[in-house]
Amino acid sequence: MVEQMKEHAMGNSSETMRGVFAAVLTPLHSDLAPDHIRMAQHCQWLLANGCDGLGILGTTGEATSFSVAERMGVLEGLAAAGVPLAKSLPGTGAAAFPDTVELTRHALDMGVGGVLMLPPFYYKGVDDDGVFAAYAEIIERIGDPALRVYLYNFPQMSGVLLSMDVIARLTDRYPGTVVGIKDSSGDVGNMLAMIDQFPGFAVFPGSESAFLTVLKAGGAGCITAASNVSAPVAQRVYSAWVKSAEVDDDAQALLVALRAAITAYPLSAGLKALMARHFGDPGWERVRPTLTLLDEVTRDSLFGAVDQTSYRLPPMMP
Amino acid sequence: MVEQMKEHAMGNSSETMRGVFAAVLTPLHSDLAPDHIRMAQHCQWLLANGCDGLGILGTTGEATSFSVAERMGVLEGLAAAGVPLAKSLPGTGAAAFPDTVELTRHALDMGVGGVLMLPPFYYKGVDDDGVFAAYAEIIERIGDPALRVYLYNFPQMSGVLLSMDVIARLTDRYPGTVVGIKDSSGDVGNMLAMIDQFPGFAVFPGSESAFLTVLKAGGAGCITAASNVSAPVAQRVYSAWVKSAEVDDDAQALLVALRAAITAYPLSAGLKALMARHFGDPGWERVRPTLTLLDEVTRDSLFGAVDQTSYRLPPMMP
Repeated sequence: MVEQMKEHAMGNSSETMRGVFAAVLTPLHSDLAPDHIRMAQHCQWLLANGCDGLGILGTTGEATSFSVAERMGVLEGLAAAGVPLAKSLPGTGAAAFPDTVELTRHALDMGVGGVLMLPPFYYKGVDDDGVFAAYAEIIERIGDPALRVYLYNFPQMSGVLLSMDVIARLTDRYPGTVVGIKDSSGDVGNMLAMIDQFPGFAVFPGSESAFLTVLKAGGAGCITAASNVSAPVAQRVYSAWVKSAEVDDDAQALLVALRAAITAYPLSAGLKALMARHFGDPGWERVRPTLTLLDEVTRDSLFGAVDQTSYRLPPMMP
Repeated sequence: MVEQMKEHAMGNSSETMRGVFAAVLTPLHSDLAPDHIRMAQHCQWLLANGCDGLGILGTTGEATSFSVAERMGVLEGLAAAGVPLAKSLPGTGAAAFPDTVELTRHALDMGVGGVLMLPPFYYKGVDDDGVFAAYAEIIERIGDPALRVYLYNFPQMSGVLLSMDVIARLTDRYPGTVVGIKDSSGDVGNMLAMIDQFPGFAVFPGSESAFLTVLKAGGAGCITAASNVSAPVAQRVYSAWVKSAEVDDDAQALLVALRAAITAYPLSAGLKALMARHFGDPGWERVRPTLTLLDEVTRDSLFGAVDQTSYRLPPMMP
């Protein structure tokens, strides 16, 4: 598995990240502070079970619900626990660009593989010039040739669309720095157009439903919430294609079934409930408001939907 | 004017704020840092020209584009320049509740009249339980009987609706703490229902179009972007009603005309352009991305629309 990860994550001459990434959950203490130990265990379990890399502190990981200090503390806690941050793509986007600058500088100091960057997300209805200006301001203030930015397009949540025009301007102005995207828009046509128009640009769908289609077209992999549970299945799909240009139909069918079961419920709360059950650890369920716990009926319904597939989660690490 | 402000802001037995508040602009230095001196001058000019209070660091004031340190710095800068923060309602809402707790504690230490609090605004489609839980978490962590929370309902920008049910639960659970709302939803029926259902609850429309209707029904005043320019006119409408239960038809017509002219353009950038022209200070125009400057044609169109009204801005302070 280690060799396989190296091949995927490091072996590509474009130097961009590749493979299956979980949008990693952030477990919480009872006071709602991030639990670095539980999270490090989860990261190691994911890396041992299908994940090539870790999309930590994204939407599924509740990043924007944490302060700058808490977000930096998570990276430090994971590093202290031995999680290889070079395989991680932490989210560093914030409503205020100085926060993104601070978080990104810190992430670079910690040796991450790149950062996943939301645009400032409070103001809605902003135009391409404003989105470009925000990214430009951030990148130039950081001013570090080691910076690798993966744009994070999730207009349904951020309220800000990263248009093809903005991506073209950013990759043109900052080649070697703006190197990829996680696209959670669900617009497969748009992802295929990016692969076509921006050579070497690493396109990660944010959903299993787009994964294989985009991978076949030259996509870099996927970064998905469901991979907290289903990464071993996603890895079967990924490896079959990357190594042999073959489609593992069984794995693909199971992956789509698992995604359908999981995404019918609130994502972070549902996935945390699944982890709590699997690890026998009720504390895993906690979320930060405005997110809420699943009620018992909903939780049972989610568990039933996942159990109806043939999939069983890999055992806990020793 | 000072006596009048006292009467409006302090004379009410419910102890809530009242009157005409500008959603105060935040001028910027060339490096995009908040310019405390320009902002303090603007605040003093507003207080001398129609404003009973100052809705600083709200949406129009670009608050969520600033870091926690920058937002605290603005309050400190205004206080140092002699702006009476007891007349201010700073915005302390953030995507992450620990930031809101920190900003609110600091604002209380600085002697503000209350805080205007957005709910955490990254996650969309959240339910009432989650919105209530977020406010409860914040209020209980602050744990200060001096806290006066004015909820900030702006679903078009925050993506989170403050429902009647959430407001009922919050005012019931935290009486004397959750004391009012700025409602920028534009839903006048909803504002009237709040006044009807929550006795003593201070309802501030975020727009001149709802101002008089809500005032007549027992509203507390208004907190609006256009008041950066039109506060003297809003004060005529407000004073005529509060002192004599009369409608100043001329003032009301002018207020509506000014609002129509101003809100046809991007609010913060347009208002800053008007200030730059009025004060003869081009630096006033700067905005933080993702907001953008108006282009020259748009700016001229805005200036023309405002100039077509009979209104002329009050002169600068000596």
